[in-house]
This record gives sequence, structure tokens and C-alpha cells, in this order.
Amino acid sequence: MDSYSSDMIPVSFVAGPSGGWRVTRIAAVRGESLPVAARLDRMEGLLSRQLTGSPWTLRGVTSHGRYMTAAEKVTLEEVQPGLGRREATRAALIPITKSPRWWALSQDERRAIFEEGSHHIRVGLEYLPAVARRLYHSRELGEPFDFLTWFEFPEASTEAFEALAGRLRETEEWRFVEREVDIRLSLD
Amino acid sequence: MDSYSSDMIPVSFVAGPSGGWRVTRIAAVRGESLPVAARLDRMEGLLSRQLTGSPWTLRGVTSHGRYMTAAEKVTLEEVQPGLGRREATRAALIPITKSPRWWALSQDERRAIFEEGSHHIRVGLEYLPAVARRLYHSRELGEPFDFLTWFEFPEASTEAFEALAGRLRETEEWRFVEREVDIRLSLD
Repeated sequence: MDSYSSDMIPVSFVAGPSGGWRVTRIAAVRGESLPVAARLDRMEGLLSRQLTGSPWTLRGVTSHGRYMTAAEKVTLEEVQPGLGRREATRAALIPITKSPRWWALSQDERRAIFEEGSHHIRVGLEYLPAVARRLYHSRELGEPFDFLTWFEFPEASTEAFEALAGRLRETEEWRFVEREVDIRLSLD
Repeated sequence: MDSYSSDMIPVSFVAGPSGGWRVTRIAAVRGESLPVAARLDRMEGLLSRQLTGSPWTLRGVTSHGRYMTAAEKVTLEEVQPGLGRREATRAALIPITKSPRWWALSQDERRAIFEEGSHHIRVGLEYLPAVARRLYHSRELGEPFDFLTWFEFPEASTEAFEALAGRLRETEEWRFVEREVDIRLSLD
């Protein structure tokens, strides 16, 4: 039944013995971790069931921005790089789940925490174009996480990426994150 | 893989020879219609495939409000009735798809059209509590429609429902609707 319009990209992150990315670390930031895996594949399309030998598969789909204003959208689109840059040999997959309290907030309350309180967009912009980023939505798919964020960056930008992740985790918005796993990967 | 949190209700609308609701009319408002069917079942849960003998199944899931402010949310929650009222023997299922131009807008642009320009929430409130309404999101599921709205009302409120549907179709927001089907049902 999947017939996504061309502006929506479905994805399945398949952990297992094979896959294009080597998993260098899986760490629980908050809540339960994910089982260890040697490698990870980022496959476009929604797998309807777990592949044999894969300890976990996470699914999501890109969608329209939920908080960005028109001006922020223009700025972001001007500077954000695409995925698959030759020099981007490091990646991070960060699945998060927000609390019921977050989802019970109204749109204006969530936007105020997201940007006016936490500067999520503004902070992210500071690390562009070094760190490419793609957000996948999972909540509507009945997945265990609400969002999967995929980051790609050159090895030399690893520290910049750590700084970005660290700053976001200190924000007001992050107080609503009840589960977060930090998965690091290398293209070798 | 479906493990929706308790605040999200997945649904499958299954058209076919059996089902709790009798289909009294299927009309295309804009774009392609849906095949005729005698009856319709509103089943909670996501069917992963078409049932035998069913000409179409539409799936969606409830989700958090995307445009409502905190004040609008409180007002709405105070007056909106639940589904399944004994007197609500008439229903409408209105699947719609919005245009790529709508989805390319930013959050603030969509909100401005939705409420400040089209008064979607304010107009809807005028018809509460007679007309119960539940919005299901389908876009993220890769379904043919973006949204499925389910309405239930007493037979005596049929004219009020027509007025509500008519007013929404005249709004600025509706200029972004590229497909709409209007399915009417009766509980007999």
C-alpha cells in the first residue's frame, strides 16, 4: 500500500552482519539502548518485516517541516548539504522518543520550546554545511521511536558534531526526550 | 511493527459487502472518486493488506494537532463529543489530498491559511457538539490520501453537516485540496 509522493522518502535502517556502514558505538543516552550490531544499512523504502539475522530495523519517512517559518526554511535550504558527499565518511543515527507530555502540548507551545526556548534550528545552522542532516518521522508508523535523525560528516568534523549533539541535549526541548540512543558509524 | 502509544488510534476503513455502516453515496468532489461499495467498516488497527472482496481500504492514524494553539485546543476539547453516540446514526468519511504546493509551505504559512485565512477551527467549532469529528493522518503511511476525516451526527443534524462541509470547501485552504471524495453513511 506504500505509494509515497516524491517529496517523501521512506527509509529502513537495518542493523545486522552486513551493510554499508560499520557501527562503531551504540550508547543509550536516555532510556533503553538497542542491541549491538556490527553493521548498518540505510535502505530507502519501508521494509514490512524484520530481515533474517537483523537484531533491529528502524523505519521512518521524511516529511514537511513542523516548526520552521518561511524565513528559516529558506535559510536552511540554502546551506544544508545533501547526503552521500564523498568526504562524509562518518555518520550518526540518533533515534529519539518524546514524552506524552510533549505530544499533549499545542502547536504554539511546541514551537515556542523548539525554537524560541531551545534554538533548535539556529543551533543546527551553526554546524552547516559540515554536518548533513536528515530527519525521518516514525511516530505515525507505530515505530518504537518518534524520530530518527541521520547525520553525515567528514572525520574532521567529528568534534563539531559532538558539540552540536551536546548543545541540543542541554536545551529545554530535550527535557521532553524520554528515550534516546546514539549510534555512531564509519564508512569502512 | 505497529506499537502505537495510547494517544494514537490507528484505523482501517474497509469498504465491502459487509460492515457496520451502509454507504448511501460516494461522490468525487475533486479528482478521482473511489469505487462503489455497499457497506463500510471502521476498524481500529492498521490492516497490512486488502481484505478479500473489499474494493478499497483506507488507513490512517490519529495524531497531535498540527495547527491549534493552546487556547483553541482547550476550547475544542471542552465541546467536542466522542464517537459512537447512540443518536449519531449518520456519518461521513471525507478523504482529502492536498497539493505539493501546500506541503512545500512552511509551518507559519500553513497555519496562516488554515486558521487566520480560512477559520478552519473556528468554523468547525460552530457545529459542535452536533457533529463529532475525528481526523486521521495518512500521508506518512504512504496512503493515497493525506487525511481521512470521519464525522458522526444525528439525522437531524444532516443539514448542519452540509453547511459545515460547504463552508470549508469555500475557504482559501481548500484551494490546496487536489483530491476529495465525499462518502455518506447510515447506521442501518
